[in-house]
Amino acid sequence: MLDAALTTAIMSAVDTGFDAQVALTEELVRFPSVRGAEHTAQDFVAAELRARGLAVDRWRIDVDAIRHMPGFSPVHVNYDNAFNVVGSHRPHHAKGRSLILNGHIDVVPVGPLDMWTTPPFVPRIDQGWLYGRGGGDMKAGLAGCLAAIDALARLGYRPAADVHIQSVVEEECTGNGALACLERGYRADAALIPEPMWNQLIRAQVGVLWFQVHVSGVPVHVREACAGANAIEAAYGIMQALHELEEDWNARRGDYPPYATVEHPINLNIGKIAGGDWPSSVPAWCVFDVRVAIYPGQDIAAAKAEIEAVIRDAARANRFLANNPPKIVYHGFEAEGYVLRDGEEAVALLGRAHRHVFGDTLREIATTGTTDARFFGLYAGIPALVYGPNAESIHGLDERVELESVRRCTQAMTLFIAEWCGLEKV
Amino acid sequence: MLDAALTTAIMSAVDTGFDAQVALTEELVRFPSVRGAEHTAQDFVAAELRARGLAVDRWRIDVDAIRHMPGFSPVHVNYDNAFNVVGSHRPHHAKGRSLILNGHIDVVPVGPLDMWTTPPFVPRIDQGWLYGRGGGDMKAGLAGCLAAIDALARLGYRPAADVHIQSVVEEECTGNGALACLERGYRADAALIPEPMWNQLIRAQVGVLWFQVHVSGVPVHVREACAGANAIEAAYGIMQALHELEEDWNARRGDYPPYATVEHPINLNIGKIAGGDWPSSVPAWCVFDVRVAIYPGQDIAAAKAEIEAVIRDAARANRFLANNPPKIVYHGFEAEGYVLRDGEEAVALLGRAHRHVFGDTLREIATTGTTDARFFGLYAGIPALVYGPNAESIHGLDERVELESVRRCTQAMTLFIAEWCGLEKV
Repeated sequence: MLDAALTTAIMSAVDTGFDAQVALTEELVRFPSVRGAEHTAQDFVAAELRARGLAVDRWRIDVDAIRHMPGFSPVHVNYDNAFNVVGSHRPHHAKGRSLILNGHIDVVPVGPLDMWTTPPFVPRIDQGWLYGRGGGDMKAGLAGCLAAIDALARLGYRPAADVHIQSVVEEECTGNGALACLERGYRADAALIPEPMWNQLIRAQVGVLWFQVHVSGVPVHVREACAGANAIEAAYGIMQALHELEEDWNARRGDYPPYATVEHPINLNIGKIAGGDWPSSVPAWCVFDVRVAIYPGQDIAAAKAEIEAVIRDAARANRFLANNPPKIVYHGFEAEGYVLRDGEEAVALLGRAHRHVFGDTLREIATTGTTDARFFGLYAGIPALVYGPNAESIHGLDERVELESVRRCTQAMTLFIAEWCGLEKV
Repeated sequence: MLDAALTTAIMSAVDTGFDAQVALTEELVRFPSVRGAEHTAQDFVAAELRARGLAVDRWRIDVDAIRHMPGFSPVHVNYDNAFNVVGSHRPHHAKGRSLILNGHIDVVPVGPLDMWTTPPFVPRIDQGWLYGRGGGDMKAGLAGCLAAIDALARLGYRPAADVHIQSVVEEECTGNGALACLERGYRADAALIPEPMWNQLIRAQVGVLWFQVHVSGVPVHVREACAGANAIEAAYGIMQALHELEEDWNARRGDYPPYATVEHPINLNIGKIAGGDWPSSVPAWCVFDVRVAIYPGQDIAAAKAEIEAVIRDAARANRFLANNPPKIVYHGFEAEGYVLRDGEEAVALLGRAHRHVFGDTLREIATTGTTDARFFGLYAGIPALVYGPNAESIHGLDERVELESVRRCTQAMTLFIAEWCGLEKV
C-alpha cells in the first residue's frame, strides 16, 4: 500500500504535468482519426511512446490472422491504414503485477459540420471543458495513460512490472484492434481502459450487433407509383418491427441480473440510410444500418436468428417484400456482453485510488454501451476495468470532456498503476 | 390531303428505312446520357443531323439567360455539359406550316445494375422489344424524328416548311432544355414530341414539383438513444403527412376536369433518401427527395404553400422538430400542368395519320406525368402534341420499347409531317 507521502506526491506530479497532458490531448484531437484514417494519429502516438523510452510495436491488422478468433467481427472495409500501436515498459526484474493500459484512437464521424459550434477537429477549451470529436471518446483517456507514466517518471519512478500501453483502432465498429492485440500475444494481470465513464467503473457492458438491411423495391415511373413498391417506404415497416423486438428484449431484462434495474438497457438505433436514385422514379433499393445491444450472456447466434425472424415476418406483411425478402448483412460489431469478474483485487485497488482522489466510493455501473474490455475479460482471462472521466455528447455534436474530471481520473489511474504494478526507481 | 399513293409510299419508305432506324436507336441507347452526361450523345445527334444536311445549332444552356422566364425550374447542378442540339430544315420558299420535332436525350438513372437482366446501356432486341435505359423514354422517338425526314428524302421529298428537330437535355428534372430552345428563339406553328405514349395523344398533363426535405436530429451515442431525436425516423412522419396531402389532392380531382375521371392522378413519390453517418450514432440529419404532381391550373405557389404547411404541421407533432423545423429545398421541377388547346387542326391531321396506320381512332389521355410540351403550349402559344410508341418500365428495370409500335408511330408521324408542312421535291 502506498504511504501517504507518496500518494500525495503522485497526485501532485499529475497536477504538475497537467498542462502538458491537456496539450497532448489537444494534439490528439487535431487528428481526424475516423475509421480508415487512424494511421497518422497512430504515427503520432508511436512517436510519443518512443520519446518516453517505451518499446514501440506498430503493425497493420491482418484480418486473416484474427478471423478465426472468438470475438472477431466481420470486416467490410479496407484495413490498409489500420495500424495498432503498443508501447511497452519491461523492467529487468519485474516484480509487481503486469498491466495493459488500453485506449482507442478511432473516433466516430462528426455528422453535419454546420451543426458544430466550432470545427470538430480544432480543440477548444471553454469553461473547463475541452471540445472536439474524440476528446472524450477517448483521447483524453489515452493521453491520460501517458500522463500517468510521466507523473511517475517525474518522481523518479517507473512501474515495477510490465506495462503495455495500447492505442488501438476499430473500437467503434468491430473491436478488431483490441482483438489483434490479443492475437499478437499481449497479456497482463489486468487491463485498464480509461473510457469516459463519468468517474465510474463499468461492472457490466452490453454486447452489440451491427447489421444492414437491404430492401428491394419495384422501380417504375412515378406516374404509376401505385404499381411499384417503394423500397424506402417499405424499409420503415421493417424498422418498426425491429423496434418491437427492441422492446421485447428490454422486457426480458429481468433474466439478465446486471440489467434488471436498468431503465432501457437495449437500444436499437437506425443510424444510417440510403436509397433511391431519382425523385421521379419509385426507388428500387434502400439500405439502412442498425445497431442493437444484447445482454451479457445472450447468445449472438440466437439474437441474430430473432432479428432475422422479425425481419422475415415484417416482410411477409408487404406484398412485394414477401416474395423479395430483405437481405441482412452483418457488417460490424458481433460483440458479446461482458461482466467484470475475477478482478476484485484490482477493483479494490482502483476503488481505493478513486476514494483518495474523489473522496467517495467508486460507483459501478451496468452500461448500455460496449467497450474493448470484453476481449481481455472473455477471451484472455484478464480482468478489464473501464474507468474514466466525465464527457458529454460523445458521438454527438460539440463533444466535450471535463478537464477537472480528467485530472482527477488521471490521479486515480496513476495511484492504481503504482499500487498494482509496484514502483522501482529509475 | 395526301393522296392514297403518296400515303402508301410514305409508309413503305418508313418500312424500308426501319432497320436503319432501329440501328440508330440502338446507337443512341449506347450513350449513358444521364443528367450531367448528355454531351457525348448530343455530339452524336449533332453529327447525325449534319449528315442529313440540316443546319445544326449546338449550345450550352446558360442558366442566367433563362432564369427570368416563366417555366424555369431551379438548378442545383452544374450545366457545364448541358448542351442542346437543334437541326433545322429551312426551305428557300417555305409554304406549309412550320413544325418543331422535339425529343429529350437525357435518361433517368438506372438503379441497381444487378437488377437488370442485361446491362442498361447495351441495347438488346428480344421478341420484338428493344431493351435499354432510355430506349423508350425517349430515344426511340428521337430517332423516329430523323427517320421520318429520312423516309421523305427516300421518296425525293423534303418538308415544304421550316422543321426544327430539337434534342434537348433536362427533360427529366427541370425542362430547362426545352425552355432554353424558347429563349433561343425557336418557334413553329406546332410541336410534336414523340414520347412513349402507347400510341396515344396527350390531351392533358400534370405539373410536377420536386423538393427535398432536410430533417435534423439530435445526435447522441446510441447507448442513450432515447435522449436523441432520430432524424431518419422523424423523416418518416413527414412522409406520412405528405401522403395525406397527396390523397387530399386526389380527392379534389373533380375541380380539374381533364382528371375528374382519372383513377389516381396525383402521385407523390419519395424517390431518394440519405441520412446518418454511423450505425452507433443517432443520426443528426436525413434528406429525402419528393416528386409530386399538380393539376393543370393548380397554382405552383399555392401548392408549395400547402406542402410547406403540411410539413410544418407534421413537424409540430414531434417534440424536437417543432423547434427545429425541416428545411425545404426546391431542387428541380417547378412545372405547371398543361392542357392541349388551340391545336385542333394539328390534332385532326395526326388523328387521320394515326387512323391510316393503326386503323383506329387516336385515343387521347390525361397523363399523370409531365413532358416538355408545356413550354411550347403555355409560354409560346405553340400547340404541342405528344404522341409516341408503346414502352414499358420506363424509369424502371429492363426498360423496353416495342419495335412494331415504333414503326407504326414513325409512319404516322411522317404522314403528319407531310400533311402539316407540305412537301417539296428535293
